[in-house]
Amino acid sequence: MSNLLVDIAQASHRVLLTQASPIDLRSNVAGKAYLAFRSGDRLSRPINKALFVFDENELLRRLAAFMNDRAAHLASADGPSTLYTIAMSYCAASDTVRLLDKKTPATYFEIFAGHLLADRFGANPQTSATVLNLDMKGDLPTDFIFDLGAGRSKFHVPIKISTRERVIQVWAHQRVLDGIYGAGRFRGLLVALTETKLDRKKLDVVEICLPDQWRVYQMFIAQLDRIYYLDPPAAYARLATGYPIVNVRPFSSFFSEADLLSGPS
Amino acid sequence: MSNLLVDIAQASHRVLLTQASPIDLRSNVAGKAYLAFRSGDRLSRPINKALFVFDENELLRRLAAFMNDRAAHLASADGPSTLYTIAMSYCAASDTVRLLDKKTPATYFEIFAGHLLADRFGANPQTSATVLNLDMKGDLPTDFIFDLGAGRSKFHVPIKISTRERVIQVWAHQRVLDGIYGAGRFRGLLVALTETKLDRKKLDVVEICLPDQWRVYQMFIAQLDRIYYLDPPAAYARLATGYPIVNVRPFSSFFSEADLLSGPS
Repeated sequence: MSNLLVDIAQASHRVLLTQASPIDLRSNVAGKAYLAFRSGDRLSRPINKALFVFDENELLRRLAAFMNDRAAHLASADGPSTLYTIAMSYCAASDTVRLLDKKTPATYFEIFAGHLLADRFGANPQTSATVLNLDMKGDLPTDFIFDLGAGRSKFHVPIKISTRERVIQVWAHQRVLDGIYGAGRFRGLLVALTETKLDRKKLDVVEICLPDQWRVYQMFIAQLDRIYYLDPPAAYARLATGYPIVNVRPFSSFFSEADLLSGPS
Repeated sequence: MSNLLVDIAQASHRVLLTQASPIDLRSNVAGKAYLAFRSGDRLSRPINKALFVFDENELLRRLAAFMNDRAAHLASADGPSTLYTIAMSYCAASDTVRLLDKKTPATYFEIFAGHLLADRFGANPQTSATVLNLDMKGDLPTDFIFDLGAGRSKFHVPIKISTRERVIQVWAHQRVLDGIYGAGRFRGLLVALTETKLDRKKLDVVEICLPDQWRVYQMFIAQLDRIYYLDPPAAYARLATGYPIVNVRPFSSFFSEADLLSGPS
């Protein structure tokens, strides 16, 4: 499975470099510069230049290191840009070959992040939880659920390309799990790629963030343990430093802190 | 404002009858028969035949009775079909003149239902709630909020053409209000038009309902007081009869029970 991710990353990266041309975008995000790949009428999503490995040989070196020891490579200083380049190569290449297809990149990203989590946890995910109540018994469809077994943590892991206005669903699902199984039984980990939005006419990029709403959700709906981004927006990263704490971190952090998270909470 | 709704209903109804042709749809919903209006390439959403007033003179009589005493007419036996015909005439006419425009009917429906609620409550809605906490003070954007004043109820009123998979947001917003202001301070009333889905190739109609998920949300996220439909799906209406109670009712019921709901809960 990791092999397959590496093959897809390499092929997608080559599509971008050989069948599309990079164009600079105007960034309205402080401290971040973006480009997009264009092929005919089709324009990729914005790519954060500082996080994307453009050089093919360097990417091959990264992918070899990743295959050699996945957790060690992803927890290293190279982790953030390796993760971003693998995920973004496929999504951007898909944008340049299919017009406005949102579903395939979202499915890819869920499989990509889900696999890396399963690999690090050493456990496969489920996608439903049992509801047992006085008046009903059944299965509730969920995002990925990882159960590491007796005495270790269970995780509720929604995976999204970006969160936008639908993110309240993530806190609401966490609330349902807290209600069914008790608070603290499932740690909520949200994994997201980015919050960029490209204006296709003006060719400028913004990040869309609603940090005050997230604070309200974290205080009043449920508590998520981590929100991991492949390209963390500064407005959300700041939430990790003030009350109420919303622990927004680079996804690469997961690979070093997974053991800590997996112990008793 | 009520005048405007009546004018729009009458004009839209005439567009459907004179510039479009009714075609029968195959119904996969037990006990309900549907048609759609077609104009050239454009096909309206499905219309429940038993709830739609097709005859223009009968509609004019209804609209006159509505203008004469809105609450009394809507609480009468004519209420369900008058409400449905006013709302559906505009939405279906819009479908036959603009291809796949979802936003205008949704905005119209929100104004339509919001106005009728404001008229019945004798209070105008707000669309934000104040958040006051140890660490922040600000305004949270919300659906319609009706505050009837000291000693009377406050209402949280989301209004949707259909609920689909996004409905968990409604329970989550209710949870936020319960958290900020205390349980029972805001009564949650969801108003929805219908849950039909039309297959445009096969010309058949289904209702998409997830009653078990609603029961889980009602048990574990927050409690909504009422879910009003202009065309209540049977699968949801049944939720009003078993535990956990989800009080799904025809929207016309609101006009007779509004005083009861407005007292202390």
